[in-house]
Amino acid sequence: MKPGYIKAIIENVANGKLSPRAAMKKLEGLSFEDLKFAKLDHHRALRTGLPEVIFAPGKTDDQIIKIFERMRKAGSDIIITRVDKRIYHRLRRKFAGIKYSDIARIIYQTRRKKGSFAQGTIAIVSAGTADMNVAQEAALSAEAFGAKVERIYDVGVAGIHRLLAHQEVLRQASVVIVVAGMEGALASAVGGMVAAPVIAVPTSIGYGASFGGLAALLSMLNSCAPGVTVVNIDNGFGAAMAALKMLQGMNKKPG
Amino acid sequence: MKPGYIKAIIENVANGKLSPRAAMKKLEGLSFEDLKFAKLDHHRALRTGLPEVIFAPGKTDDQIIKIFERMRKAGSDIIITRVDKRIYHRLRRKFAGIKYSDIARIIYQTRRKKGSFAQGTIAIVSAGTADMNVAQEAALSAEAFGAKVERIYDVGVAGIHRLLAHQEVLRQASVVIVVAGMEGALASAVGGMVAAPVIAVPTSIGYGASFGGLAALLSMLNSCAPGVTVVNIDNGFGAAMAALKMLQGMNKKPG
Amino acid sequence: MKPGYIKAIIENVANGKLSPRAAMKKLEGLSFEDLKFAKLDHHRALRTGLPEVIFAPGKTDDQIIKIFERMRKAGSDIIITRVDKRIYHRLRRKFAGIKYSDIARIIYQTRRKKGSFAQGTIAIVSAGTADMNVAQEAALSAEAFGAKVERIYDVGVAGIHRLLAHQEVLRQASVVIVVAGMEGALASAVGGMVAAPVIAVPTSIGYGASFGGLAALLSMLNSCAPGVTVVNIDNGFGAAMAALKMLQGMNKKPG
Amino acid sequence: MKPGYIKAIIENVANGKLSPRAAMKKLEGLSFEDLKFAKLDHHRALRTGLPEVIFAPGKTDDQIIKIFERMRKAGSDIIITRVDKRIYHRLRRKFAGIKYSDIARIIYQTRRKKGSFAQGTIAIVSAGTADMNVAQEAALSAEAFGAKVERIYDVGVAGIHRLLAHQEVLRQASVVIVVAGMEGALASAVGGMVAAPVIAVPTSIGYGASFGGLAALLSMLNSCAPGVTVVNIDNGFGAAMAALKMLQGMNKKPG
Amino acid sequence: MKPGYIKAIIENVANGKLSPRAAMKKLEGLSFEDLKFAKLDHHRALRTGLPEVIFAPGKTDDQIIKIFERMRKAGSDIIITRVDKRIYHRLRRKFAGIKYSDIARIIYQTRRKKGSFAQGTIAIVSAGTADMNVAQEAALSAEAFGAKVERIYDVGVAGIHRLLAHQEVLRQASVVIVVAGMEGALASAVGGMVAAPVIAVPTSIGYGASFGGLAALLSMLNSCAPGVTVVNIDNGFGAAMAALKMLQGMNKKPG
Amino acid sequence: MKPGYIKAIIENVANGKLSPRAAMKKLEGLSFEDLKFAKLDHHRALRTGLPEVIFAPGKTDDQIIKIFERMRKAGSDIIITRVDKRIYHRLRRKFAGIKYSDIARIIYQTRRKKGSFAQGTIAIVSAGTADMNVAQEAALSAEAFGAKVERIYDVGVAGIHRLLAHQEVLRQASVVIVVAGMEGALASAVGGMVAAPVIAVPTSIGYGASFGGLAALLSMLNSCAPGVTVVNIDNGFGAAMAALKMLQGMNKKPG
Amino acid sequence: MKPGYIKAIIENVANGKLSPRAAMKKLEGLSFEDLKFAKLDHHRALRTGLPEVIFAPGKTDDQIIKIFERMRKAGSDIIITRVDKRIYHRLRRKFAGIKYSDIARIIYQTRRKKGSFAQGTIAIVSAGTADMNVAQEAALSAEAFGAKVERIYDVGVAGIHRLLAHQEVLRQASVVIVVAGMEGALASAVGGMVAAPVIAVPTSIGYGASFGGLAALLSMLNSCAPGVTVVNIDNGFGAAMAALKMLQGMNKKPG
Amino acid sequence: MKPGYIKAIIENVANGKLSPRAAMKKLEGLSFEDLKFAKLDHHRALRTGLPEVIFAPGKTDDQIIKIFERMRKAGSDIIITRVDKRIYHRLRRKFAGIKYSDIARIIYQTRRKKGSFAQGTIAIVSAGTADMNVAQEAALSAEAFGAKVERIYDVGVAGIHRLLAHQEVLRQASVVIVVAGMEGALASAVGGMVAAPVIAVPTSIGYGASFGGLAALLSMLNSCAPGVTVVNIDNGFGAAMAALKMLQGMNKKPG
Repeated sequence: MKPGYIKAIIENVANGKLSPRAAMKKLEGLSFEDLKFAKLDHHRALRTGLPEVIFAPGKTDDQIIKIFERMRKAGSDIIITRVDKRIYHRLRRKFAGIKYSDIARIIYQTRRKKGSFAQGTIAIVSAGTADMNVAQEAALSAEAFGAKVERIYDVGVAGIHRLLAHQEVLRQASVVIVVAGMEGALASAVGGMVAAPVIAVPTSIGYGASFGGLAALLSMLNSCAPGVTVVNIDNGFGAAMAALKMLQGMNKKPG
Repeated sequence: MKPGYIKAIIENVANGKLSPRAAMKKLEGLSFEDLKFAKLDHHRALRTGLPEVIFAPGKTDDQIIKIFERMRKAGSDIIITRVDKRIYHRLRRKFAGIKYSDIARIIYQTRRKKGSFAQGTIAIVSAGTADMNVAQEAALSAEAFGAKVERIYDVGVAGIHRLLAHQEVLRQASVVIVVAGMEGALASAVGGMVAAPVIAVPTSIGYGASFGGLAALLSMLNSCAPGVTVVNIDNGFGAAMAALKMLQGMNKKPG
Repeated sequence: MKPGYIKAIIENVANGKLSPRAAMKKLEGLSFEDLKFAKLDHHRALRTGLPEVIFAPGKTDDQIIKIFERMRKAGSDIIITRVDKRIYHRLRRKFAGIKYSDIARIIYQTRRKKGSFAQGTIAIVSAGTADMNVAQEAALSAEAFGAKVERIYDVGVAGIHRLLAHQEVLRQASVVIVVAGMEGALASAVGGMVAAPVIAVPTSIGYGASFGGLAALLSMLNSCAPGVTVVNIDNGFGAAMAALKMLQGMNKKPG
Repeated sequence: MKPGYIKAIIENVANGKLSPRAAMKKLEGLSFEDLKFAKLDHHRALRTGLPEVIFAPGKTDDQIIKIFERMRKAGSDIIITRVDKRIYHRLRRKFAGIKYSDIARIIYQTRRKKGSFAQGTIAIVSAGTADMNVAQEAALSAEAFGAKVERIYDVGVAGIHRLLAHQEVLRQASVVIVVAGMEGALASAVGGMVAAPVIAVPTSIGYGASFGGLAALLSMLNSCAPGVTVVNIDNGFGAAMAALKMLQGMNKKPG
Repeated sequence: MKPGYIKAIIENVANGKLSPRAAMKKLEGLSFEDLKFAKLDHHRALRTGLPEVIFAPGKTDDQIIKIFERMRKAGSDIIITRVDKRIYHRLRRKFAGIKYSDIARIIYQTRRKKGSFAQGTIAIVSAGTADMNVAQEAALSAEAFGAKVERIYDVGVAGIHRLLAHQEVLRQASVVIVVAGMEGALASAVGGMVAAPVIAVPTSIGYGASFGGLAALLSMLNSCAPGVTVVNIDNGFGAAMAALKMLQGMNKKPG
Repeated sequence: MKPGYIKAIIENVANGKLSPRAAMKKLEGLSFEDLKFAKLDHHRALRTGLPEVIFAPGKTDDQIIKIFERMRKAGSDIIITRVDKRIYHRLRRKFAGIKYSDIARIIYQTRRKKGSFAQGTIAIVSAGTADMNVAQEAALSAEAFGAKVERIYDVGVAGIHRLLAHQEVLRQASVVIVVAGMEGALASAVGGMVAAPVIAVPTSIGYGASFGGLAALLSMLNSCAPGVTVVNIDNGFGAAMAALKMLQGMNKKPG
Repeated sequence: MKPGYIKAIIENVANGKLSPRAAMKKLEGLSFEDLKFAKLDHHRALRTGLPEVIFAPGKTDDQIIKIFERMRKAGSDIIITRVDKRIYHRLRRKFAGIKYSDIARIIYQTRRKKGSFAQGTIAIVSAGTADMNVAQEAALSAEAFGAKVERIYDVGVAGIHRLLAHQEVLRQASVVIVVAGMEGALASAVGGMVAAPVIAVPTSIGYGASFGGLAALLSMLNSCAPGVTVVNIDNGFGAAMAALKMLQGMNKKPG
Repeated sequence: MKPGYIKAIIENVANGKLSPRAAMKKLEGLSFEDLKFAKLDHHRALRTGLPEVIFAPGKTDDQIIKIFERMRKAGSDIIITRVDKRIYHRLRRKFAGIKYSDIARIIYQTRRKKGSFAQGTIAIVSAGTADMNVAQEAALSAEAFGAKVERIYDVGVAGIHRLLAHQEVLRQASVVIVVAGMEGALASAVGGMVAAPVIAVPTSIGYGASFGGLAALLSMLNSCAPGVTVVNIDNGFGAAMAALKMLQGMNKKPG
């Protein structure tokens, strides 16, 4: 996992600087030294290229704040999703530079600058005004970590010409995130239009036989447009993370 | 239910041609006389404007043939759906003028002529080649009872321009039937294009999370295009019957 | 899409009034000029014959009011569904002529007059008193756009003679909307009685194994009466829109 | 469980005819003596008034035959449900007096005579011809154990007058079993007509959104007619058993 | 429906007391004269032997009160289920003799006396204390209409000896209602013990994979004890109505 | 059930100390004498080795307190799950020695001492901070009845090295309880690592397609690691009870 | 994972027997050396105490045979589940000592002797004859790996005295596996009777609303008897593996 | 859609080479000229960068062959999925250069060469041998269109060290496709390890509560590892298409 570090241990054993016993101890303890704070996974950023995320629901306010503090000390980029503004008010008293979005309900703090990716744009397309919360969760999450985002909102398939009017922008995007509730048909229409990967986000917008977003989810999983992939219902954040991973791939230097 | 007949009975009682007792007997027996053959509902055609239909699955060959024979004696227009060709071979030995469609798996016999509706066309739009069986069940059923049908097949939303190329035909139709499996997005795209009523038929085409047509069904029920109505999965026949009822309405003389 | 307009552009190019470059720009921008306000689909009325609808849930009060204002400027007929009275109070301060229904929870404004359809009546049949909200959403939506509506409420199948007593009215209707929760059996009983198209609206009235209207929905989709079509659970508005499309068809002059 | 027997044991201990040790042994072994053949529950007939039933699916031919033999030796009335004719052919070589029904797929043997219930008739109402197998399973099972059965088949709600024509017979029945697939609406229509208990049997007849009888099952559980009870999908036998229990109640002498 | 009345009309026509035209009018209007108050089904009591029931959820307070008033004028026995105490407080100001149960959440008024059934007792068995609301809805509804009820509460199968201790009472009951949530196993255990019909009521008591009572519902529908019938989740009232219908059957004089 | 007691009765009959009639009475009344308080199952502790549990939801405050009081009089170990703190405040006024946990929402009182099991430790592993309530319900319930518990929290599979770092502790545990929401993958990862029995507890933590814990539940039931068993969603208490039963087995003296 | 081995490497580096480079190579390659055959997990037996299992469905005959051969070479105990007899016929030509069970559909080969566990018995209880295949899969799997098994078959709750007759055997078992389809009520009845851990196996026996074992699965997950844990539908093998893990715990020497 | 082509038309009008009328005709006919063969979407390759795919199920052999022929004439790259070998035998008689895979059940023909992507590798990771068909559908589809693929099969999470042994290969991949049935936990474990985008493919491998792949699907949608996206059950082809789109993005020249 840290071959350089391990190699150094072995070489120190070889040249007598380290006893076998001490070497064993270091090797065994490795993951603990890596971890530093309990089980917070600060190395995930290294492994996956993504910031550490705190999913707020189910956690107490104090738990959220404590995890945030330890992450900040560790110097991580942080994003808290589905979080109440009241947590934000508590956090900003102590910490400078954190931001909150009312619509997306996220707190974030990052040292990446906008445009930190030389290549690539994420287009975020949404079907209706009611899907905007989820679309904004995706957009702001992506921007917080340096991506350039194009928003194309309110272009549902019942007025297909609205979508067609944005074909050019769509085709220039490196990744397209499609956010739609109700029947989720937008994913297929967009999927058939663009060469870029399409990430579909079903939303829970709808009623009755939408069954909390199930209709849109199934619709997107069954898309007749090949190459559409899907994330969980209302998971704008997850779609942004997947898109960021794709941008990272495009910006890696050949080697 | 048959006010003329009942009125005649009453008048015959009034003028002494019928005893009260005989009148009572006639009145009580009325629905049996109407029926003639067991509980076959020969009057449904009068009430609903639709032919009698025999849904084959779950019935033995002999039951199907016996019901067909009694209906024919009663002079009904008849359609047998989801029926094996083997039944057709047995029936045509005895009865002239019956027809069978391999693709739609229907046997039908009708005295209505093509074009018996002065006004109106039914456009039948399908998403993929695999949806054709259901589309043809709808098309042939509608034609068997005198409707003019326009077929627009294989125009799924993943290639939206294929659909746009047929806008003119779609807009001239009096009723549009949309047949689609997988994510069923076609219903919404068509629903946003036309002034005519749109009847959506989900099909069981698909696999995995299509759950036997459930994905398309939910998608169509949640259509963001207002005015789309839905029938059961694979129910091409039902869509045709609904469309026929609409054509009947358009062809009724004002009064 | 607007062939006259396109033709004029081409002719202006031919006679030198327009440079090729300017012509290209006009052609490319076409859908934007059509649209005028962002992505509001003012042309849907032309395409589908239906008014623009704002589905309120999931939208902020300010979003709803802003969309309403832009639509009004564009001269559209407007209907807002599932909307709180508080929005109505805000809107009527600014705009004259808008109406609100407490039971149906809709705001509407339309320039069509009652009886604008020369032909045809919509009968709205409901099973129980608790289904009335949905039935009224359908009835008021249809009336707002000029349809004549007959209400036949509280005629569930457990007292079948109540339904039979209204056979005459039902048979004279051009379209029948059946609104029922619990087991939704009313759709089949009505479907077997009338020649007009029947649109079934399952409601979420019920408890336990009604699963929020799923029981009524499945029941209606499986109706043994051919020609019954179905809309989403509680979707009285959608049923009204489908019925309006049918009335439009009946009132079109033959051509 | 057998208080007379236990009392005799105690009294024999009291009068010295039985040692405490032997008494203990008898008491402990009681349920084994009762049982006689492994775990066959010959006393269920005494406890519940119903015959022993062998549900064939999942059992090997040899298991079925062996269980039958042991029951016969014990003198039980026996019914084997969902059983292949091939088992019948094997059984009747050895045993006289057993009967098989091709439609209901049951083997039965009983010493009760037709009309063994002085009071009461079971009316069995079915919606369509395809529901007949299940209806016959109910009818033959009930008759095998002495009940008088009236069959009213093919009276689905799409032709409500067919049902109304049989009101008199329905109202004279002591118990009504309603067998219906598809939307299962018949249970509510009948439930609103009669004073007798109504047992609804959903069938798996249908396709698509019938989901193997789920639509009819949910419909019946949500019946707006109070007092309708429901059994499992296709469980004609279970409905007959419930009806027999009700007839037993009616035929018990007051006391 | 009213053969005596119809016969009188016919005879009056025969003897000239009634003109054919007046007779026709009377015959056509028949069901309206029967009805008297809008579509309230006062004759249901005659047809089904059950009181009129008002299911409160989904109705406004005023609707409930108005329906109650009209029923009372018509002299019906009335029961309002799932109703808030606040309605009761409004009703009792105007009407004497109505009763309310906090646990069962029913308002009822009836002229039947306790013990109006000469024969038969209903045993109501429940699995846990939390199922008591539903059990009491069943018990009080049955008692309101004259039935004798035995309550055996808190005897779930995890302590099977608790149930066995009540075998004697259970076996003397004419009908047994089993109320159970969670896994609903009690229905099968009771079903195997008694000769009386068993009506199973699944409750929504439970959490997680109980899915609002679905687990208990499916469990009861699949009972290995033949003759168990099932009503909707939490439908204590429905079970009582079914039990009353069975008692009626037992108390009818042979004829 | 109490053979010694029964034997004494028989012997007393044999030596004339007890009349047959009195003996019968004693035998018949046996389960009532055992029970003492209504249907409270004080003997369950003897039969199953587990304390009596009161599941609070669905019970009134007074019912809970009354049951608690009777159990306490009977000297049972008691645990109340999913209970509001307000009940605790009422109980501790009357009764000394009861404890409450805010996180686990349990009230408990037990006379067993920590470490009453000579052998064995329960390891409780949880995937995320949000699963902690359920993990603590399991941990505190197990500790209340004398078990030694090791907590390993926040070790979800997305950072698999966090789990690997605790392999040693995991492998020394006698039973492992795995608590996880979302996709529940932790159960399989742990199941493949240890020789001890693994009890998986799905939690309702998640959103959208987690469907209230269904995703984690299905995931755990389908674990590719053999020997994983599963309890209901959020059922930390049930997992603790199963683990206690296993510890009991390990601490039984061979015989 | 193999600390002794790693320690040896380090010491060899320290005393100059191994170069740092060679040591690094050995450390990196560790898991490959462990594995030997592709990714077969021969160490799982060490980690989990269970044999390697081959789940046959979805694998070709050749794949199964090849995996078997490599496992055998590695000296593992092997069990192949849900496997066709035809594979057995192919395997036994090459390999001595393998066994097949027609009922359980397993091939197994093991060097453990019956009774290799000094302590403990597994009782396997099944509800009906049709559940026997699954019960036998559990029983034979457990016996193949040295466990002592008691079979108590055909004791469903509809005849609760059959179960009560086996209380003594049940109470002496160290682990109880309950196998039941249909409503799965047996798990709760047994769970309330015994101190041993109870593992419930729902089976797919049933029809209609059993939904392939879902009814029994939900029933068991919602058991009112605390301490019941559940495995997948028809997963007799998995229950046996869980029971073996429990027996292992009981037979570990204290230390 | 083809701006260059349209621009040429306009310029020809401007310089008099084309009459306005002819220009109009060309513009209107555009999509038909584009299409050439019925509604085959030959331009999808241009729009989306993916080949045309024929999904075989639901199509007749003749339909498949006819579509293949027309595509081939149009010079498209073609892939037929879920296709029987018998179609391949018919096709290769006529057409050279087509290939078939027995395991993946695809026919493909492509002019792209292996390694046509300068950058990037797709790693395909599968959980069990039974998942191999789906993994191979993904692998061969990706290779057919020029991608470099690394296969890492049979590394399910129950033996997590098998997965860890391949960390290096996984981390060097540009896209990772994870194929897993049963509980689908592998997606989360891989998702937490790599910086590359992860596409999860649930498979229908499993039984009972796997519900045809639903368990794995839900598990993957709820992955705790951010950035995992999901395709339909068994949709190896779709995952490959999504991965190809990502590779295309990485290989686009910056501009």
